[in-house]
Amino acid sequence: MTRRIRIQLEYDGTEYAGWQLQRQGERTVQGVLEEALNRITGENVRVFGAGRTDSGVHAMGQAAHFDLPGNIAPESIPYALNANLPDDIRVFRADEMPEDFDARRHTRGKIYRYRIYNSRINDVFLRRYAWHIKYPLNSDAMQSAANFLVGKHDFSSFQAADCAATNAIRHVYMAHVIRSGDIIDFEIFATAFLKQMVRNIVGTLEMAGCGKIKPEGIVDIMQAGNRSRAGMTAPAHGLTLVKVFYADDPPPPELAKYIPDSADAPI
Amino acid sequence: MTRRIRIQLEYDGTEYAGWQLQRQGERTVQGVLEEALNRITGENVRVFGAGRTDSGVHAMGQAAHFDLPGNIAPESIPYALNANLPDDIRVFRADEMPEDFDARRHTRGKIYRYRIYNSRINDVFLRRYAWHIKYPLNSDAMQSAANFLVGKHDFSSFQAADCAATNAIRHVYMAHVIRSGDIIDFEIFATAFLKQMVRNIVGTLEMAGCGKIKPEGIVDIMQAGNRSRAGMTAPAHGLTLVKVFYADDPPPPELAKYIPDSADAPI
Repeated sequence: MTRRIRIQLEYDGTEYAGWQLQRQGERTVQGVLEEALNRITGENVRVFGAGRTDSGVHAMGQAAHFDLPGNIAPESIPYALNANLPDDIRVFRADEMPEDFDARRHTRGKIYRYRIYNSRINDVFLRRYAWHIKYPLNSDAMQSAANFLVGKHDFSSFQAADCAATNAIRHVYMAHVIRSGDIIDFEIFATAFLKQMVRNIVGTLEMAGCGKIKPEGIVDIMQAGNRSRAGMTAPAHGLTLVKVFYADDPPPPELAKYIPDSADAPI
Repeated sequence: MTRRIRIQLEYDGTEYAGWQLQRQGERTVQGVLEEALNRITGENVRVFGAGRTDSGVHAMGQAAHFDLPGNIAPESIPYALNANLPDDIRVFRADEMPEDFDARRHTRGKIYRYRIYNSRINDVFLRRYAWHIKYPLNSDAMQSAANFLVGKHDFSSFQAADCAATNAIRHVYMAHVIRSGDIIDFEIFATAFLKQMVRNIVGTLEMAGCGKIKPEGIVDIMQAGNRSRAGMTAPAHGLTLVKVFYADDPPPPELAKYIPDSADAPI
């Protein structure tokens, strides 16, 4: 007898080869969670994530599901797991879900944040969590370019070459560039994302920020449907998965207002 | 021919046995700076810090002086040093000073910040930079206790047993407890500090925050002049040296207003 459990967790991705096991012997978040569940239950429990964060990418609000044997109360699951996890992963919530719940298929959107530290000399406390860019970036130009991302588009130009997605149509609800002093945050809220989509978008926004392209140049890049036209893939360590939404844990009103029509809402 | 240079720098203290070399073979901030200066100049240059941060303590604004041979322009010194330093130390400013300038003796006060993360489950991004306390703390009670620290007092009760200071009279200008969500910051601005003084104060504020003592109980503890009456030494990793002030780089107006009388100002 098992129950389907959804957990929400944060992790510092610095020491991980991403969420999912790629090559034997690499340390992954999924692998470390499965080891912890094995210690708690004595059984092999497979963990399914809402999204497969790349090597070095962080999470403030990743979600995952698994089938848990035994009768531990959901509110005790974070403590039981954390006692068996390294200190760079913390599970902060667990819920019992219907047995057909799927952490990936049932999302109602996700928010990612990409952080740039834009100053001649890097900040030691941000060195693991932001892309250091020394030359000045125009965040207004970056916002102007980001505005063209909003809506339902073919994002092939921002798709990793080895991306397995069958089509590249995604719906971006919100794409904000927020400058606070030397920190530039790019926040993007979408139904779902292609592999390395946020990092490839940020590499292109950087081109708008330093004047290599005009903000509206991002439209040509999107229409070309060709990865080689877009900017570089921004480094992984600037990226954080902020939150995964579900029907029972939906976007707050300040985000829900960006969803134009419930008919367009993701599954 | 050398020039006396003052540098200002930040560091993540996690991987250091403090500022100053204690035992052979330990990695210290001073030692790493001296190695970098040796690579740049080909000579042995001794570095003198404004304060000797303990093992694991961080700095956003440490200061130090040294006598630099050669003719590198002051504005180039941060870049030359940073190119020879690990990424957890960044020098962000250098100034040529009078030849008798002393980074420790000539300070006009320092600010330290001690950060507590007060939540049942720790935050992975703060695990190296804040003391995790699971039980709820009353930050108003902590502020009420902190108010008694302000002024010129004998701080023997908050002095490390092996502190070399000849007297324990120090002038605290400001002692603020600021709660933002689950983060409690204690900011203290004083002429100078005794060894482990801030960490010992925070261990005592924690007693007020969890109700072990009343806020005014800190007065008895101070008057006892006895280290054993005060709280535990709060862990080093929550502490950050925020800024060291000098005559040419004085406290900003919002801090200077706490200095009651210029006759009381430190040397």
